[in-house]
Amino acid sequence: MSGSSFGRIFRITTWGESHGPGVGVVIDGCPSGIPLAAEDIQRFLDRRRPGQSKYTTRRNETDSVEILSGVFEGKTTGTPISLLVRNQDQRSKDYGNIAVSYRPGHADFPFKEKYGFRDYRGGGRSSGRETIGRVAAGAVASSLLGELGITLRAYTKAIGPCTVEEKDYNFSEITENSFYMPNNSIAEKAGEYVSSLMAQTDSCGGIVECTADGLPVGIGEPVFDKLDALLAQAVMSIGAVKGVEIGDGFAASACVGSRNNDPFYMDNGEVRKKTNHSGGTLGGMSDGSRLILRAAVKPTSSIAKTQNTVNESGEDIEISIHGRHDPVIVPRAVVVVESMTAVTIADLLLQNAASKMDNIKKIYLN
Amino acid sequence: MSGSSFGRIFRITTWGESHGPGVGVVIDGCPSGIPLAAEDIQRFLDRRRPGQSKYTTRRNETDSVEILSGVFEGKTTGTPISLLVRNQDQRSKDYGNIAVSYRPGHADFPFKEKYGFRDYRGGGRSSGRETIGRVAAGAVASSLLGELGITLRAYTKAIGPCTVEEKDYNFSEITENSFYMPNNSIAEKAGEYVSSLMAQTDSCGGIVECTADGLPVGIGEPVFDKLDALLAQAVMSIGAVKGVEIGDGFAASACVGSRNNDPFYMDNGEVRKKTNHSGGTLGGMSDGSRLILRAAVKPTSSIAKTQNTVNESGEDIEISIHGRHDPVIVPRAVVVVESMTAVTIADLLLQNAASKMDNIKKIYLN
Amino acid sequence: MSGSSFGRIFRITTWGESHGPGVGVVIDGCPSGIPLAAEDIQRFLDRRRPGQSKYTTRRNETDSVEILSGVFEGKTTGTPISLLVRNQDQRSKDYGNIAVSYRPGHADFPFKEKYGFRDYRGGGRSSGRETIGRVAAGAVASSLLGELGITLRAYTKAIGPCTVEEKDYNFSEITENSFYMPNNSIAEKAGEYVSSLMAQTDSCGGIVECTADGLPVGIGEPVFDKLDALLAQAVMSIGAVKGVEIGDGFAASACVGSRNNDPFYMDNGEVRKKTNHSGGTLGGMSDGSRLILRAAVKPTSSIAKTQNTVNESGEDIEISIHGRHDPVIVPRAVVVVESMTAVTIADLLLQNAASKMDNIKKIYLN
Amino acid sequence: MSGSSFGRIFRITTWGESHGPGVGVVIDGCPSGIPLAAEDIQRFLDRRRPGQSKYTTRRNETDSVEILSGVFEGKTTGTPISLLVRNQDQRSKDYGNIAVSYRPGHADFPFKEKYGFRDYRGGGRSSGRETIGRVAAGAVASSLLGELGITLRAYTKAIGPCTVEEKDYNFSEITENSFYMPNNSIAEKAGEYVSSLMAQTDSCGGIVECTADGLPVGIGEPVFDKLDALLAQAVMSIGAVKGVEIGDGFAASACVGSRNNDPFYMDNGEVRKKTNHSGGTLGGMSDGSRLILRAAVKPTSSIAKTQNTVNESGEDIEISIHGRHDPVIVPRAVVVVESMTAVTIADLLLQNAASKMDNIKKIYLN
Repeated sequence: MSGSSFGRIFRITTWGESHGPGVGVVIDGCPSGIPLAAEDIQRFLDRRRPGQSKYTTRRNETDSVEILSGVFEGKTTGTPISLLVRNQDQRSKDYGNIAVSYRPGHADFPFKEKYGFRDYRGGGRSSGRETIGRVAAGAVASSLLGELGITLRAYTKAIGPCTVEEKDYNFSEITENSFYMPNNSIAEKAGEYVSSLMAQTDSCGGIVECTADGLPVGIGEPVFDKLDALLAQAVMSIGAVKGVEIGDGFAASACVGSRNNDPFYMDNGEVRKKTNHSGGTLGGMSDGSRLILRAAVKPTSSIAKTQNTVNESGEDIEISIHGRHDPVIVPRAVVVVESMTAVTIADLLLQNAASKMDNIKKIYLN
Repeated sequence: MSGSSFGRIFRITTWGESHGPGVGVVIDGCPSGIPLAAEDIQRFLDRRRPGQSKYTTRRNETDSVEILSGVFEGKTTGTPISLLVRNQDQRSKDYGNIAVSYRPGHADFPFKEKYGFRDYRGGGRSSGRETIGRVAAGAVASSLLGELGITLRAYTKAIGPCTVEEKDYNFSEITENSFYMPNNSIAEKAGEYVSSLMAQTDSCGGIVECTADGLPVGIGEPVFDKLDALLAQAVMSIGAVKGVEIGDGFAASACVGSRNNDPFYMDNGEVRKKTNHSGGTLGGMSDGSRLILRAAVKPTSSIAKTQNTVNESGEDIEISIHGRHDPVIVPRAVVVVESMTAVTIADLLLQNAASKMDNIKKIYLN
Repeated sequence: MSGSSFGRIFRITTWGESHGPGVGVVIDGCPSGIPLAAEDIQRFLDRRRPGQSKYTTRRNETDSVEILSGVFEGKTTGTPISLLVRNQDQRSKDYGNIAVSYRPGHADFPFKEKYGFRDYRGGGRSSGRETIGRVAAGAVASSLLGELGITLRAYTKAIGPCTVEEKDYNFSEITENSFYMPNNSIAEKAGEYVSSLMAQTDSCGGIVECTADGLPVGIGEPVFDKLDALLAQAVMSIGAVKGVEIGDGFAASACVGSRNNDPFYMDNGEVRKKTNHSGGTLGGMSDGSRLILRAAVKPTSSIAKTQNTVNESGEDIEISIHGRHDPVIVPRAVVVVESMTAVTIADLLLQNAASKMDNIKKIYLN
Repeated sequence: MSGSSFGRIFRITTWGESHGPGVGVVIDGCPSGIPLAAEDIQRFLDRRRPGQSKYTTRRNETDSVEILSGVFEGKTTGTPISLLVRNQDQRSKDYGNIAVSYRPGHADFPFKEKYGFRDYRGGGRSSGRETIGRVAAGAVASSLLGELGITLRAYTKAIGPCTVEEKDYNFSEITENSFYMPNNSIAEKAGEYVSSLMAQTDSCGGIVECTADGLPVGIGEPVFDKLDALLAQAVMSIGAVKGVEIGDGFAASACVGSRNNDPFYMDNGEVRKKTNHSGGTLGGMSDGSRLILRAAVKPTSSIAKTQNTVNESGEDIEISIHGRHDPVIVPRAVVVVESMTAVTIADLLLQNAASKMDNIKKIYLN
């Protein structure tokens, strides 16, 4: 396995299992001179922390970050930034039949087949704690993007069937409800929906949307490392994500060209688009409009409801997964999607610096 | 720009513009000993060739492939396989105002901004001809997968609003209609739909579905190079694709855990799943079920209908794009999606060889 | 800067500065199932530890390693292995004019120019402590190679002008002298030489040789990732190394073909070579003979002797570098060269698994 | 095998065998806007062409290059540049016992072991023709470097025992003798030496030196992708090279610190070095002085003199390799070493653009 790194210049490498000593990330290729403090990273980590509402797991994890390298006198030095979050409460316990069973919807079975044995104490690398490294890196990428005036926003578009339509977006309400939805009243309905599922020891999924404003035109590398292609990899690589779309996405496939094409027009000497069905990319490069992507998140796999499955000895069994699991992971996934988006944009921004000789001359001549 | 390569071990690098001397691909890292002839590749290229029905462009391109290296006495040698397809009919002509206009839905504007100038004679690297290299590589990857008993199938699931539901799939009909749909009668309706759009000088999109059978369990590298994550990149990097989903995809986000989880059971000593909502992946690794992915393809951007846009001088103008363009690109995209899926699987299969020491010992300690 | 990773499958990423909280390495892509304990790694780290003789710095660094991930129940799991060594004695002190001067032979000046500012408290990433991550990774690579019966040996061939000729090698003596030389009496002369330099507050360099036995034939990837090419990168990337050669190396350039070519012969059904001028590689692939490489190590740059230099304000100054510096770094570099050799071979061994379809079939079919 | 690519941003991928249809290279990541014509590349290729003196093979290869993509209206477009050179005279012939023998000093044996079979018609990928792609890419890299005022110079320092000492360098004489030596009278002695070896059907090696002037300070990425480390890989990956050194190289290992350190001084407000033992790098980054590297080239392996070896059936045999082989490859390797140096510097220059946030702001903010 050598799939723990992402990015070509701004390159992150995450490591760590849920029940080992800790989790973390090394960020190589972050330019020098960006203001960065542990608090900047902690603020991002706090957004994915459990125990923030009755709809998330009540596990108590403080997830406190330590900067081990790459920052000096409050600024990045250009050398690799190593970030460590110790796991808490990793004491050995009796994992009972969970240790030898393949939980439905989990990676236990392919993990066992791939590696020959597995760390049965949790999801191992498939644990939700793996996203801590992503979010820590996302905080650093966001600091970089902030230096250039690029801002990201992520929120929950849907919890199960409770969807916020674009016309009902009220971004100021995002932080006012348990689901990070841009509409408090739909969030309330989502709360009722999740509560009813919790009563049935069941779970649900939802949709996360993320936008980015302020991108220069032309970010993204034709043809395989397109902005949308790398965003698709970045977001689909998050544990429970099963679908990714840009702009109108799947809806575009049922549209006609004359409506789906975004007309250009001049606005005070700037090229603009009248509509943004493309979601901010053309030919895999940023087109100057708002970047828009959506991620489909599946229902939490760990449910207390009895399920059929098999164990490692090849016997059919029944399983009921107890423990403090999120009935819906979507609210905690919001910052993860935002983080992976930030990391992807940061890397492609740096790569794009070398796209034309004029840029290179700006740096080296005079 | 250095985004023209894809894959870590089975690594493809495509090159070429629509109006230059040719297009091609170099495949590095293909194992030695795989039977391969020019005809194997030509068969794939013929599937994306224009002019096969009244619903595709009537341009006549023979797209004949030449193997320049890497094959000796009918087998791959382990050295890079270089494949060349000469462009035809690349004579200079008057590009008129197309040369200085930003066509809506096209990459002209970001290309100009990114590189400072652009090859205005066609889409350049954003041309559909760029996919020739992908398809040629897909043919080689398919030969590799065939050696292991892995088979792929791709088809059109939807043309605009005309969708084939899973219960109506009849795979034997795929090659019997102009759209590569697994249902002739829905294909007929799609024909009527496309004809009506052609009359309006408009275009439409659709959905391509691709499946793979016979994958060993455990293919895919946690955490960023998951099977589904790299498939998402691979497929989203195809020109007109705006969304990718695996298994139930976006529908899973509205489902509950007890229904979305696929229960395991034993079948003659083999671990199987009763359902396949996951689309063949768990934790980003193949789970032994059929791999299923879908790609949303936007409507063709080039339409004769008059559109508003701007030119390079910063003037608002009207544009009407004439020429031999596909009213719907979906049928020709089918083999491209299949090819990118094949390339992705081939690469991850080779990577997975190093996942456990037992595999390595099988090779070096006989 | 994103140059902190090495290897394609067995991929190491080092991080950390001399005066930050710690240094470490993440090893991604190590196959599962290799026995590994902290002691295996500690044993390697102890070999580079200072304070082991009067010819090395008397700083006291225990350099105790902690395994943060990737090992479960005494075996590698296939997930990234994160290793941490805390820095000791990193208390702030007065760096005086060192902080604003460019020390001759050090990286202070290019570091400042490249990143705009620098961590002036030590060498930063150019500190000798950066090699701790390399050595820790080398220990893991050596465990992998040990599973396949591959063994490495490194030693000091020369200290300044005191060189051990091949005919005088006595490998059992390597661990019996302060310089890890395979000849105690030449080591004694080296001791006298170094002592005389210490009296003059000067320093010296030397040559490290490393061999590997038991490599399968064919390791190394034509044409840029040849075994010797990647070894050259790996070894030249060690701080003070200024030259690398394989087999007869520079001497081969003055030889004639009929003498430099190694004749093949059959030995009990095995292909062997009568001589080994090539040093174990042909065409950049292992040829079944002993792998032999040499690294030229420059004299320690930090000397107490007064030197001319400039400071960051652009003034000509004199500088005398006090502190506990090694008069010769070669003995401590031995294990670093061995470690980088091990890491390089491990990675290429894993890559080579995918060289022929027969290997892949061994893993996936039957 | 996936070792056919080199570079991270300016990334070259070579392909082709000596006896296939052709050889070539794809250069991905070359910035747009660099003037480039086929003649610029042809000029480089002509320098490695055989048949230029009585000391090189009399094979007649015109090696005419065709630009297949990436250049429009005389400038690079930013898209991949594909270059093709057709092989000539590749008609099938009887390879006799060469086809089934392992030639001493050649890669036949490891190639067969690695891939299971081999293209026996020449060296395959180990043929000297593989360097055509390197040289073509070197021409493009040199055009890029030229835009920044960086100039390279390569020449033959030694042919067998005939060495030009630095004090005897006369650069204007490089192109005046058959060996590209910076001293005509030593070149004459080299001619006599080579002639005597030719009479004995033997061969010899030599040393190539390459310098670069005008590099900005700070090029090279700590810690594994140091300028000297990547140069070592780049140069050692050339077929016959057995050693690489930077600056004083192996001689530095026998020097003392006070002499080997280069003192800094101020020169009209610029930081300069009084000496250049380091060869232009400190800490793996360019230090503002002339970059100096040397490559040790082994004697040509193909000699008509009778040698002992074995065949694929495992029999001891005698072999005599006839054909038009260079008695010394060094003069033709000069441009190959220069090309690999240019490619390495070009890539690291582009990478370095992202080293500090100030550079990035220069590009995106203004």
